[in-house]
Amino acid sequence: MKLSRIALVVVVGLLAAFPLFAADAVVISDTGYFEGNLPAITVGLRGIMYAQIDVLLSPVDLHSGMYGGTVANPANALATIIAALKGPDGRVRIPGFYDDVVALTDAERAALAALPFDEEAYRAAIPVSSLVGEAGFTTLERKGARPTLDVNGIWGGFQGEGAKTIIPAHAHAKISTRLVANQDAATVFAALRDFVAEIAAPGVTVRTTYIHGGEPSLTPADHPATQAAARAIEAVHGVAPVYVREGGSIPVTAAFDHSLGLPVVLLGFTQPSCNAHAPNEYLLLDNFEQGTRVIVRLWDELTALRA
Amino acid sequence: MKLSRIALVVVVGLLAAFPLFAADAVVISDTGYFEGNLPAITVGLRGIMYAQIDVLLSPVDLHSGMYGGTVANPANALATIIAALKGPDGRVRIPGFYDDVVALTDAERAALAALPFDEEAYRAAIPVSSLVGEAGFTTLERKGARPTLDVNGIWGGFQGEGAKTIIPAHAHAKISTRLVANQDAATVFAALRDFVAEIAAPGVTVRTTYIHGGEPSLTPADHPATQAAARAIEAVHGVAPVYVREGGSIPVTAAFDHSLGLPVVLLGFTQPSCNAHAPNEYLLLDNFEQGTRVIVRLWDELTALRA
Repeated sequence: MKLSRIALVVVVGLLAAFPLFAADAVVISDTGYFEGNLPAITVGLRGIMYAQIDVLLSPVDLHSGMYGGTVANPANALATIIAALKGPDGRVRIPGFYDDVVALTDAERAALAALPFDEEAYRAAIPVSSLVGEAGFTTLERKGARPTLDVNGIWGGFQGEGAKTIIPAHAHAKISTRLVANQDAATVFAALRDFVAEIAAPGVTVRTTYIHGGEPSLTPADHPATQAAARAIEAVHGVAPVYVREGGSIPVTAAFDHSLGLPVVLLGFTQPSCNAHAPNEYLLLDNFEQGTRVIVRLWDELTALRA
Repeated sequence: MKLSRIALVVVVGLLAAFPLFAADAVVISDTGYFEGNLPAITVGLRGIMYAQIDVLLSPVDLHSGMYGGTVANPANALATIIAALKGPDGRVRIPGFYDDVVALTDAERAALAALPFDEEAYRAAIPVSSLVGEAGFTTLERKGARPTLDVNGIWGGFQGEGAKTIIPAHAHAKISTRLVANQDAATVFAALRDFVAEIAAPGVTVRTTYIHGGEPSLTPADHPATQAAARAIEAVHGVAPVYVREGGSIPVTAAFDHSLGLPVVLLGFTQPSCNAHAPNEYLLLDNFEQGTRVIVRLWDELTALRA
């Protein structure tokens, strides 16, 4: 069962305020610890724009000997499109992609650099052979404060053992971008769609379809509700939380933030290695108990705010 | 049931010669008509080199928000590799790929240009929006007499409806090249493998694996066995065959040709639109009967040769 499906989305009208629209803040528990025993409050989330690219050649697969060299290949054409979306320097090449990105301040970069981040332990825990990403930014900056673009899935033609000599009738890719303030999903999708149409090879039909989107969000670390959560954490863990920006997206956060004008406290209890969205996703029982205690404590802190 | 599986591979030691190694020629029926009522003898077949490229990142899929921007993406990396293999001019960019290609002579180009080829009908029968391929060559030249490279299949990550926000753990592609005289599969594979290793992005592990290969073959149109087949065709159809080069590969042809020194007569009876290797592959019953008559007649012609 996926933790993301049963995540505690605790939406509380602070100070027992009802209806919801009259709330002062929102608490969502879908984030986690910075590392094993170091609690964190997530103050920034990336947004997302998720799309699908379909490249269509013919009604059925074609014999790659009889037709190879005379017709376009939709899988080759798709690969060429994807390759053009991001450079070897890790920069997204969709025109205008970075136009709305709010640059990190020197203070924000210093705060991220001050976090006790063990890059080698992070790499080894995944594990991957090396960490790579946008040139000119640290791993933590790239993880939470810079936008990126990834293929989430790709398919077309023959996928079995051995060989089948065909030109695929069509090929497809799921592609998403993680967004940071002040990018918005609709603008980024339009830029992607236009760029793909511009670079698509002749001989195939290319469609770019919007699947979903969510805006990025940022909540001030010094907001009274955030500070109430920080005190609750310190009371349970005996240590103050760090303030981090997470690379993931919780689209409802931006809805509360942008549409209802409510600050959102992101107060979650998973480990960084929790395998989110993958097999064997987990929540430590200790963290489940600690999280319960922090949440209970938070109500006291919030009540005190009202007093 | 696939026609290619039940193709009439008629291997005959000419003039009743046994054992096979003492034969004078080989007849294989796995080719077809040039168009509806115009019989053809295929004098050239392309060879093939079929490989798989595997790009490996991590043991499981990764959350694209938590890790996007910090690790390589194997599907993006695979797309970048594939995009580098062939240029927008249709030329394969693997270093050395064209080194062993025997250029078409002016006479061969003139013979191909003289064939009654209706390019628009060919396009519309597939159908595709337009015909594309290597710059500087006609469609018939590209179809049978020039090497090419195609992705036969590609896959990795999420392929379902909607969205899943992952970075795939791995991504894969089946890639084949059609070869012409005097390319050979082993040399082309080594060039592909070395080029892929050279251009592979950091942060992923890339493996290129040989799946199978077959050499190209060319049989002279004026060989006595070929001319015997031409007379058999004319006797049944009332029209002389055209001589064509086919884009497909029948690896055993090169084995008979190169290893046993036997000329191969390619005398088959399918329509160009037979959907070879695709759903609804077919053989017209008329062509089945005509083919039977041609083959029977061929034995008489071959006997006459011996007389």
